[in-house]
Amino acid sequence: MTYGLGLHLANGLVIATDTRTNAGVDHIATMRKLTLFQNPGSHILALASAGNLATTQSVVTLLRQRLGQPGLPGNLFDAPTVFDAARIVGATLREVMSIEAPHVQAYGDPNASLLLGGEILGDGQHLFLIYSAGNFIEATDDTPYLQIGELKYGKPILDRIIDFDMEIAHGAQVALLSFDATIRSNLSVAPPLDLFVKPRGSLEPVEPHRITADDPYFALLRKGYAEAIRSSLSSLPLPDWIS
Amino acid sequence: MTYGLGLHLANGLVIATDTRTNAGVDHIATMRKLTLFQNPGSHILALASAGNLATTQSVVTLLRQRLGQPGLPGNLFDAPTVFDAARIVGATLREVMSIEAPHVQAYGDPNASLLLGGEILGDGQHLFLIYSAGNFIEATDDTPYLQIGELKYGKPILDRIIDFDMEIAHGAQVALLSFDATIRSNLSVAPPLDLFVKPRGSLEPVEPHRITADDPYFALLRKGYAEAIRSSLSSLPLPDWIS
Repeated sequence: MTYGLGLHLANGLVIATDTRTNAGVDHIATMRKLTLFQNPGSHILALASAGNLATTQSVVTLLRQRLGQPGLPGNLFDAPTVFDAARIVGATLREVMSIEAPHVQAYGDPNASLLLGGEILGDGQHLFLIYSAGNFIEATDDTPYLQIGELKYGKPILDRIIDFDMEIAHGAQVALLSFDATIRSNLSVAPPLDLFVKPRGSLEPVEPHRITADDPYFALLRKGYAEAIRSSLSSLPLPDWIS
Repeated sequence: MTYGLGLHLANGLVIATDTRTNAGVDHIATMRKLTLFQNPGSHILALASAGNLATTQSVVTLLRQRLGQPGLPGNLFDAPTVFDAARIVGATLREVMSIEAPHVQAYGDPNASLLLGGEILGDGQHLFLIYSAGNFIEATDDTPYLQIGELKYGKPILDRIIDFDMEIAHGAQVALLSFDATIRSNLSVAPPLDLFVKPRGSLEPVEPHRITADDPYFALLRKGYAEAIRSSLSSLPLPDWIS
């Protein structure tokens, strides 16, 4: 499994993934699941993937190959809007699924889901969740986050805290705690984590940030949050109907 | 869906369920999913159920009918240990599944899972999770909680806090927050909540405690915890690599 999270905030985007892939408990590896497609000044896009690794790697490789073919279908750098880029990603996923899914189904689940977020010159900031069927939904001001993969463990903290108007650094802090909750409760999600953090309005290239298991900030945050929860519980009242 | 949680603690047991059942979003109802089988002085047992409501109601009704048949198979009050009671529950679930499952599968999932916890005279306190196949696992000092149903949203707080040696009132407090996380993130789990809280060593009957949506203690706990999380986040550092 994988956990991927995108935050569409007033001041920018945060897209994060873990890097664990597994096929059973014997076959565990670290794989990058965050891919950037950047043409500075015009296209700054990040793609996070979850699901069948053969499917998602094929999609990413096809998208990369087609970047070099201006004017041909499937070139993300020709997309005039992020919506059009999401259509290209969805169509590429459909193409891979139509070839692979009938052969893979007998052995396992060929499905994948993707988050595509970013900004294109003349278009605003957008964040999309693309389903295995190739269709997609967009994050809005009301629901400013989207998740893929092993998403349930990390959802309560988002529902409590994420707000469209929060600062992106605060959003990244909460995203890391959403990953922390997932990592504590599920073996199939593990660091290192890859983060794409982009201020709104900028078309400068983004350097992805990798957080390893022993990253000092992540360690401080995890420990501080765990201690804060414990101390808040001891300061809250106990049920008075239990003697 | 449903969420059911059992805590097997040094000083007693906490077993809790929500009461929402749904078949699609149009057909939502409140149903008790916590059943007590109590013969004061000898058998104090609680059964929590999740999954197909027709399956679990049939199991509970058969178990209730058979209480009145001393000496015949399937009478929980004849079980000399909680392990034997879990075998009776598992066998009853198998009986229902063998009759119903072949007919139900074409329309939906006939599966169910159950938590059985309690104490029987001469046996200690035990907590079991019974699968649809009728087999079961037991909570231990190392892993003192078991969950059924929609369990992922409420698991991180248990992994952070639950400890075999905590007081049962504190366990009930954390159980309620685990339900709060689930209720906030998932429409299929909703109050009222039913709690069974039993001190270890007692064979007195337990009065189940119902927590409605507007229960003052639950409201205070939810609000206090949400505020504590928010204030802890603002006191924790932000990532220094985000400007």
